[in-house]
Amino acid sequence: MNNGFGNRPRARDLGIVIGVLPPGAYNAITDVPGVRVGHSTIIQGNGALMPSQGPIRTGVTAIIPHPGDLFLEKITGAVVRINGFGEVTNTQQIDEMGVMEGPIMLTNTMNVPRVADAVIDWAFEHSNDMSVTTWGISPIVAETSDSYLNDARGRHVRREHVFEAIASARDGIVTEGAVGGGTGMICYDFKGGIGTASRVLPPDAGGFVVGALAQTNFGSRAKLRIDGVPVGRALTDYDERIQRESQGSVIVVIATDAPMSSRQLKRLGMRVTFGLARTGTQGGNTSGDFAICFSTTRNRPHHSTMPTLQLPQVVEDSAVINKLFEAVVEATEEAVLNSLFKAETMRGRDNRIIHALPIQETMEIMKRHGYPIK
Amino acid sequence: MNNGFGNRPRARDLGIVIGVLPPGAYNAITDVPGVRVGHSTIIQGNGALMPSQGPIRTGVTAIIPHPGDLFLEKITGAVVRINGFGEVTNTQQIDEMGVMEGPIMLTNTMNVPRVADAVIDWAFEHSNDMSVTTWGISPIVAETSDSYLNDARGRHVRREHVFEAIASARDGIVTEGAVGGGTGMICYDFKGGIGTASRVLPPDAGGFVVGALAQTNFGSRAKLRIDGVPVGRALTDYDERIQRESQGSVIVVIATDAPMSSRQLKRLGMRVTFGLARTGTQGGNTSGDFAICFSTTRNRPHHSTMPTLQLPQVVEDSAVINKLFEAVVEATEEAVLNSLFKAETMRGRDNRIIHALPIQETMEIMKRHGYPIK
Amino acid sequence: MNNGFGNRPRARDLGIVIGVLPPGAYNAITDVPGVRVGHSTIIQGNGALMPSQGPIRTGVTAIIPHPGDLFLEKITGAVVRINGFGEVTNTQQIDEMGVMEGPIMLTNTMNVPRVADAVIDWAFEHSNDMSVTTWGISPIVAETSDSYLNDARGRHVRREHVFEAIASARDGIVTEGAVGGGTGMICYDFKGGIGTASRVLPPDAGGFVVGALAQTNFGSRAKLRIDGVPVGRALTDYDERIQRESQGSVIVVIATDAPMSSRQLKRLGMRVTFGLARTGTQGGNTSGDFAICFSTTRNRPHHSTMPTLQLPQVVEDSAVINKLFEAVVEATEEAVLNSLFKAETMRGRDNRIIHALPIQETMEIMKRHGYPIK
Amino acid sequence: MNNGFGNRPRARDLGIVIGVLPPGAYNAITDVPGVRVGHSTIIQGNGALMPSQGPIRTGVTAIIPHPGDLFLEKITGAVVRINGFGEVTNTQQIDEMGVMEGPIMLTNTMNVPRVADAVIDWAFEHSNDMSVTTWGISPIVAETSDSYLNDARGRHVRREHVFEAIASARDGIVTEGAVGGGTGMICYDFKGGIGTASRVLPPDAGGFVVGALAQTNFGSRAKLRIDGVPVGRALTDYDERIQRESQGSVIVVIATDAPMSSRQLKRLGMRVTFGLARTGTQGGNTSGDFAICFSTTRNRPHHSTMPTLQLPQVVEDSAVINKLFEAVVEATEEAVLNSLFKAETMRGRDNRIIHALPIQETMEIMKRHGYPIK
Repeated sequence: MNNGFGNRPRARDLGIVIGVLPPGAYNAITDVPGVRVGHSTIIQGNGALMPSQGPIRTGVTAIIPHPGDLFLEKITGAVVRINGFGEVTNTQQIDEMGVMEGPIMLTNTMNVPRVADAVIDWAFEHSNDMSVTTWGISPIVAETSDSYLNDARGRHVRREHVFEAIASARDGIVTEGAVGGGTGMICYDFKGGIGTASRVLPPDAGGFVVGALAQTNFGSRAKLRIDGVPVGRALTDYDERIQRESQGSVIVVIATDAPMSSRQLKRLGMRVTFGLARTGTQGGNTSGDFAICFSTTRNRPHHSTMPTLQLPQVVEDSAVINKLFEAVVEATEEAVLNSLFKAETMRGRDNRIIHALPIQETMEIMKRHGYPIK
Repeated sequence: MNNGFGNRPRARDLGIVIGVLPPGAYNAITDVPGVRVGHSTIIQGNGALMPSQGPIRTGVTAIIPHPGDLFLEKITGAVVRINGFGEVTNTQQIDEMGVMEGPIMLTNTMNVPRVADAVIDWAFEHSNDMSVTTWGISPIVAETSDSYLNDARGRHVRREHVFEAIASARDGIVTEGAVGGGTGMICYDFKGGIGTASRVLPPDAGGFVVGALAQTNFGSRAKLRIDGVPVGRALTDYDERIQRESQGSVIVVIATDAPMSSRQLKRLGMRVTFGLARTGTQGGNTSGDFAICFSTTRNRPHHSTMPTLQLPQVVEDSAVINKLFEAVVEATEEAVLNSLFKAETMRGRDNRIIHALPIQETMEIMKRHGYPIK
Repeated sequence: MNNGFGNRPRARDLGIVIGVLPPGAYNAITDVPGVRVGHSTIIQGNGALMPSQGPIRTGVTAIIPHPGDLFLEKITGAVVRINGFGEVTNTQQIDEMGVMEGPIMLTNTMNVPRVADAVIDWAFEHSNDMSVTTWGISPIVAETSDSYLNDARGRHVRREHVFEAIASARDGIVTEGAVGGGTGMICYDFKGGIGTASRVLPPDAGGFVVGALAQTNFGSRAKLRIDGVPVGRALTDYDERIQRESQGSVIVVIATDAPMSSRQLKRLGMRVTFGLARTGTQGGNTSGDFAICFSTTRNRPHHSTMPTLQLPQVVEDSAVINKLFEAVVEATEEAVLNSLFKAETMRGRDNRIIHALPIQETMEIMKRHGYPIK
Repeated sequence: MNNGFGNRPRARDLGIVIGVLPPGAYNAITDVPGVRVGHSTIIQGNGALMPSQGPIRTGVTAIIPHPGDLFLEKITGAVVRINGFGEVTNTQQIDEMGVMEGPIMLTNTMNVPRVADAVIDWAFEHSNDMSVTTWGISPIVAETSDSYLNDARGRHVRREHVFEAIASARDGIVTEGAVGGGTGMICYDFKGGIGTASRVLPPDAGGFVVGALAQTNFGSRAKLRIDGVPVGRALTDYDERIQRESQGSVIVVIATDAPMSSRQLKRLGMRVTFGLARTGTQGGNTSGDFAICFSTTRNRPHHSTMPTLQLPQVVEDSAVINKLFEAVVEATEEAVLNSLFKAETMRGRDNRIIHALPIQETMEIMKRHGYPIK
């Protein structure tokens, strides 16, 4: 059983099958050809919070959209706001120009500027022209807050962690759970973090791949549903529930090799909402929920030399678009679940404990609801 | 058992309890004080489609936001697009000015202009000033398509039907199912139409009421979920499924007596997406899915006489806003279900039959999934 | 001197040269290959307003985007809101799907539903499939208010006028001034109506054509500027200025044969704001100001038969895009001026008179500001 | 003659009077009660560009919206995108929640993350609760690019400069020209930078104050207009024009003490477009043009303790709103001009020279166009 790194199983390993479309080889965003993921995880210290010093439970995750030059070969992209109490950098530019450049970075809230600055460092190392003969990179950094477990004031994600996340990005299996940007995150009052999943369309629908990667930090326990089963209600007494002022946030990155315009990618992004809703959430008032979507097949050059440009074919068939929507919904729901199944119990600042989703209890609840488990 | 008009039960009558908040007295949008609903239902003829003549299976529904002059006392409102393959008239003006005026009308797609024109007729009858000394009304008309069962080319909703829907609007019980604008609609390949539900916030959250009314014409059978239970999969062989080119549409009207700004109402509207998602849909490519939201407590006068205006208090507390979000999600989900439970089997153009949701089979499936039914 | 129909000159005939790009052969939206314009003008009765009877000073204008089937071959389009106190039908669908279908109709405010209904009539005459085997047309109707001069309550634009406007659409010279939808309109307190202009890009920028057609009903006298010269201030005593409650509205239709995405067309639409601003306006609080933009070269079929579709090349070069922006600004400004120069004095309801822009006085003011007039 | 700091006059000192509304005491954004402005200007080194070392021609400007706690007492705000090739941080959150917090910082493009990080530093110094018991500040940083004159790769704006800009913020006269965030900026191919202006509404329109502050880095020489006069065309041979790949950007901050909702502030922001257009620009393809608008009178607390909140009165009267629009247009236009009139010739990286607007020649051109100069 290939269930990724770590000892805990993924949802599908336990017989939880979300939807009807088949996943790709790794059931991960890396099933989209060319997409790579890397993490830098920072865990240091224990005990009482010493603001700006620790304990540290944080990190950064890099999604690399394609193997080429990430500045000179831009990708078609779109960011969709589901609930805007959060930040994704440079969304106005992405919406205006329809393209994204550089790696997509996920980290904690207070660290957004430092990660963005480090992405500029990284880009400058790969280009002597930026800010000299042409303009510089517009970094894409998204965030959720880990201040319940982490010394967030310390802004501990530094240049070396950003470089490490980018440099370590690989295809194939993606490490999930309390890693990278997801290290200190909390989902439905259980330990959350990073989760991923993918779907492959049938050949007559183009055979395209859709991948989702979620950094999950949202939801209240009682609302959690797994493939429709209201497991959260039955788990409310599992341990003492935390009291959090904010209802957290979630970032979902959607990648596809289907050729799509930025307008179409916004429509994919809207379907992330449907996928999230199936896990039980309603989108909290102080939640920063965004979908970041890109297509790997419409690389657009930084420098154009002709008045017009021949773009690849784009998806137009209604049946294909509906399958893509379905793939986004299914992959989003499963990515969230994977973040819960893979993340392990974490003790953080002030000895606060966030428990992992109790797998045995959860599966027993599923069975009681007639769920066909292996 | 008070289950509204008609012989079929509502979802809650059968023990299906969506969410945790209590409904209002009628579990209807009319639980919001001052809101009234009226229908005009047009059913004529049988057999083969004679384009522009019949058979007719259509109608119009009017939601009256408050008992005052609907033009001179405007309400704070917002329209949220979930998927825009459809029309709600005057959305740009609502977004720019933050207010709505007149009744909110739901009908079928091709009839939007005729209903809008009839709303102008109706408004002119109540005002000698419009288009003479001041500007005229901007009608609000939303639609879904009933062309599978109805002679949609005929645009059979005329002035008298619009006037009838408005004049017959009443508080209390709302007729649901295949009535008014929902007459010819199809939901998850079963007969759909009009459904409604409401929620009441706890006293310490202001005690506000949220009501939803849905005109349902969306979804494919296999995706239908009832409170998380995937009943659609088990019902796919119930009868021959229809083949529709379009995946239909849905309009959800949200009313509340909570004092809210148009910005806040947009946020309520976004939560309609979460409620719809729980019934299984993903939002089809050619679906026109909109939320039309209004607050009854911020009536703004047509003519202002002072430089500034004292508005009522607005909701600001995060806990209250989260409860309002929850109320929208729950009421939306239940309104969709009520449209399915209440609608009866209909035979329409070309003798096409759309079956009602088979209640007994459905409840048996629910039980098999451990659902606690009365 | 070819100055279009009517006795009054166009701005350029008098030596007023807006910007630096050359106009097309007709300096009209019809310079964009395939685009045609038709009007139906309705002028009946005199004297006191008899609401719903007359006097009538109204009409409708049709812009036909291309010579093919306007439903089956959709065009890439976008509608941009500058100030939203007005209606353009079906904007949400245009934004979601990126395409427009059918003719673009301009009329007066209260007549929008009747014109939309007549467009459906017209489309049904050209298709037996609509609302029978496929969905129906989504009409595009925009408006400004002519209630100062016209019996707007009468909604006098009927089916036959809509059909006449469409049937009479032709290429070449476009009739300007108080015609079609512009019949009863008022611009900067002078008689306004329909105006048009065009620009041709240099060959090394693709040689594309940009055309603008404006229905002008906005602005207060004192603010009017012609190519920067504040002529309005000097004309405030020309006649008794009218007192209008509303500050009117303006619709600008932008056509181009440059291959552009809907995202790019939105960016063109934003430049209409710059063109309008140069004529002096600030965009009034109760003004309905919209840009309706389309590209003739990206016809998209109603029925797609392949998973993906090869679109034409799109504009990507920054220099070309900047030239297109410049062309929009220049053509918009000149189209507004042409509506003023071509419209003749009109006496309407209640014997109200709106004077034409006094050309001789205007040109004398221009000269006093050192403007190089022929 | 009080013309602010520096030897060059402001536009109004020379008899250039934009529009009809009177300016406030300082004709500056600081005329809005409570608003303060501070700069940190960094000029070091000469000669050839040594990437990451110098020469340095950059800085940062802080606009302080009110004298209270900028985090706990949030202001109603809105950011409007005119052309989105640029970054304003946290725009999604501002749009979702309708409020802004902290100082508004203007700097150069590549320095956005470092300035945002320094704002967090500054906020942490004023709060032990942020990221410990409540969430942290969402910094607002906007930018334009100074890479033609400055070593932009060096990102030379550091923590101490941000603190200096905030600490030095004062009311009264605002230093304009090549200072703060505007130090290295270029406007219409002349030296640009920071400019400001204000307008006061008549007492019967509430007597509200509107202030604008612009960081100008946009436009090509030939297009420059001053109060309508096309001075740019006559100045094209003044010196060798620069060749810039990008057409630059502009940020305009609008402050008012008129009580307004975020929806209304967006409408103010749209009017910035009209003000910019009057100076000649069309909004370049690669320009990052944003309006950042706030009202000082609707401070909203970070912590709410009641279900609802009584907001101050809001502007509703159409005449007042139109005056506010007019004030924004006039103040924006004059703020841009002041940036040009006040900025002095600068020599920067690689000995590149950007000349100041030649005042004598400019005024002579104005006179030739009949402009009534003192």
